[in-house]
Amino acid sequence: MTEEMEIFERIETALLRRNFQALKAMTAEMNPADIAAVMTDLRPEQLLLFFRLLPKDSAAEAFVEVDGDVQVELIKGFTDAELKSVMDELFVDDAVDLIEEMPANVVRRILRYTPADIRRTINELLAYPEDSAGSVMTVEYVDLKPEMTVRQAFAHIRKTGVDKETIYTCYVVDKNRKLIGLLSVKDLLFADHEDTVADIMETNVISVDTLEDKEVVAQAFSKYNFIALPVVDKEQRLVGIVTFDDAMDVIEEEVTEDIEKMAAIVSSGDNAPYLRTGVFTFFKQRIVWLMLLMVSSTFTSLIINGFENSLSTCLVLTAFIPMLMGTGGNAGSQASVTVIRSLSLGELRFNDAFRVIWKEIRISVLCGLALSLVNFGKMLLVDQLLFKNPDVTWTVALVVSLSIILTVLVAKFVGGLLPILADRVGIDPAVMASPLITTTVDVLSLLIYLSIATAVLGL
Amino acid sequence: MTEEMEIFERIETALLRRNFQALKAMTAEMNPADIAAVMTDLRPEQLLLFFRLLPKDSAAEAFVEVDGDVQVELIKGFTDAELKSVMDELFVDDAVDLIEEMPANVVRRILRYTPADIRRTINELLAYPEDSAGSVMTVEYVDLKPEMTVRQAFAHIRKTGVDKETIYTCYVVDKNRKLIGLLSVKDLLFADHEDTVADIMETNVISVDTLEDKEVVAQAFSKYNFIALPVVDKEQRLVGIVTFDDAMDVIEEEVTEDIEKMAAIVSSGDNAPYLRTGVFTFFKQRIVWLMLLMVSSTFTSLIINGFENSLSTCLVLTAFIPMLMGTGGNAGSQASVTVIRSLSLGELRFNDAFRVIWKEIRISVLCGLALSLVNFGKMLLVDQLLFKNPDVTWTVALVVSLSIILTVLVAKFVGGLLPILADRVGIDPAVMASPLITTTVDVLSLLIYLSIATAVLGL
Repeated sequence: MTEEMEIFERIETALLRRNFQALKAMTAEMNPADIAAVMTDLRPEQLLLFFRLLPKDSAAEAFVEVDGDVQVELIKGFTDAELKSVMDELFVDDAVDLIEEMPANVVRRILRYTPADIRRTINELLAYPEDSAGSVMTVEYVDLKPEMTVRQAFAHIRKTGVDKETIYTCYVVDKNRKLIGLLSVKDLLFADHEDTVADIMETNVISVDTLEDKEVVAQAFSKYNFIALPVVDKEQRLVGIVTFDDAMDVIEEEVTEDIEKMAAIVSSGDNAPYLRTGVFTFFKQRIVWLMLLMVSSTFTSLIINGFENSLSTCLVLTAFIPMLMGTGGNAGSQASVTVIRSLSLGELRFNDAFRVIWKEIRISVLCGLALSLVNFGKMLLVDQLLFKNPDVTWTVALVVSLSIILTVLVAKFVGGLLPILADRVGIDPAVMASPLITTTVDVLSLLIYLSIATAVLGL
Repeated sequence: MTEEMEIFERIETALLRRNFQALKAMTAEMNPADIAAVMTDLRPEQLLLFFRLLPKDSAAEAFVEVDGDVQVELIKGFTDAELKSVMDELFVDDAVDLIEEMPANVVRRILRYTPADIRRTINELLAYPEDSAGSVMTVEYVDLKPEMTVRQAFAHIRKTGVDKETIYTCYVVDKNRKLIGLLSVKDLLFADHEDTVADIMETNVISVDTLEDKEVVAQAFSKYNFIALPVVDKEQRLVGIVTFDDAMDVIEEEVTEDIEKMAAIVSSGDNAPYLRTGVFTFFKQRIVWLMLLMVSSTFTSLIINGFENSLSTCLVLTAFIPMLMGTGGNAGSQASVTVIRSLSLGELRFNDAFRVIWKEIRISVLCGLALSLVNFGKMLLVDQLLFKNPDVTWTVALVVSLSIILTVLVAKFVGGLLPILADRVGIDPAVMASPLITTTVDVLSLLIYLSIATAVLGL
């Protein structure tokens, strides 16, 4: 962190002093990702100057790495020549990402300075549905013919490989471009120069369909540890590849979205960093669930009003409502979050529902007993003896403790079950996390508590 | 999913019918990761038989992929010869992971059948602190000498590369094994055979220290898109590399731990799948926070008791306590979770504290106003008119609505600030998520609500 800021300050001062030699020297040694980090923090008027001083190749890479608004900033300032040269340097899939994020007027300008053939590919890629494998794949891969010898394969890689995203996994296609095998550069290096590709290629290829959900694609990477995964169309023809670094980005995105959903936030999809996200965007992301949950808690008010007489005769009961609801909510979200994560890691499926419920029941019995025992002791020792609260009789303590056991039981049952059901009916389980569970459990725990109270205390 | 289960059933029946030819044919085509998935579901008595029928190479790979308990199961059944051959096949870093997970008696047996030199390396690796780069790195990498020609480099890779985890990034070390550069196989392929390594190597190498936190290492991968990252000791000597697939595993682990912490679960570290984790383990993971939070909610009870008289004179107020606390909790965790995620993605640092607070304040004003307006209308229309609750006067509605605004404000302030403070003082921000925030906000919102009530209603 500190080091980064140091570098940033040195660059900023160099910009102010117009010490371009120093800047060129510094940036020549820097990694594009770090250059991007600097650009994100530069003031607009410095940004373009800085970008023009960058080494050509890392300039393009850095351009890909920075946030959308910085890209717009830059493109606005670009001369047509500059825009063209950047577009030439970009990988097609990066160009597509760029175009998807840019405002229409900028897009038009970008496309005007993109070579016709690239533009055609871009339009093809833009046609794939959002979140599909097709939308995250790159079309820059190395393909080999089965009849090539290893020597020819190497020649082919040297000829075509320079601007491919990865050359380390090569894909073997027949005349109809059907994917029939793959071959790693490692296999090639250890093979005899006169072997043919067909002899040594791996024929049992794991590939994904262009329309496959990109989250599933990303999971395949963490399962199989591939460098790249081939993407094929309905006719098994190779149309592109997804590389591990793009898969990593997808995973990061998906995780952020899950975590947001778990916290009752309507995920915006684009993962702009916190400080670059507007107050109003946050408001829209957050108000929806806050409103829903607030209104839905009308039920709890109704229940309490319904038991008004019982409560008025034994007011001390109200003092433990927050504790009961809190415990229920926490117990419930513990269960739901555990199940949700297991679902998204593919460790659980609907068939396991009963095993989950049975497990959660046993856990909740253990937790419930421990909690209610401690609570019983605490109420008698702290509330009654220490704080001399005469209303806290041992029967009240009993009522509260019993309610805790049942509440935890119900909470973990609901928390364990809802996400699996949601997953089954095609709702994202993450939505079934804490807040929704809490509100459900609130109602149930209140009913349990007040019914037990009226029964035991005969109110 | 269905396809996986289909394969599993075909294998299981083949095992029961002792149709070994069919099994060999099936497994020959399968990816080790898929074989591992099958093994996890097989019954113990079938497991060993199945494993013995596997092709030698994928057997070892599958062995690495399966869960710890299956590995123990297998090792117990292994003949010494089998154990030895598996150990020979393993990468050293996988052997280390294995040994770290196994019970002591199994470990002794494993080490007995590990070649002495490997055993030495294993012990060295075991010495690195948990969660350090050293603990996740592999020592099987390709190193080159600066004076080698490209031709010699290729020869060296062919000679030593077979059992390296990756050959695609080679590391250049001087006579003291100091890391002085790196070279990708791509660079080598596009270079002239007579160039020397020193001529074409990348000298600006990003490396990590053996003691660096593995989470930081993983972040470097998603930032720089490396295939591998070199690990050096205090004297800048190359001691190992971390590969992208190991980094992906680290990221998955860290995310699970964060999510668990956010849900008041004490993370166990080992990420055994849900169905393979014991009830008692879950109990231990969950009871700690449940207990703490339950006991801490003594404060809320005390507050309510303190205002007992005010409440008794206007009992309807109690009906809205759950709604207020719920809204406060949700508003707070929305803020905390957003900030926590930004921190773990490295988008925020302590210096941003004030910008975060200022942003959260503005968000909470928007949310608070919207919520309180809707609530005001709802109380008058639903509670008063619809449910004819005479106690819900417009002053009561006013009190509740005012409390909502202040509660949301406080909630988002606390939720935004606590994680950053925690991060600053070296506590994992994730612990500052929902439950802890909620309990804090509960107390504050109660105080706000009941003070406003007593003031406005003059209780």
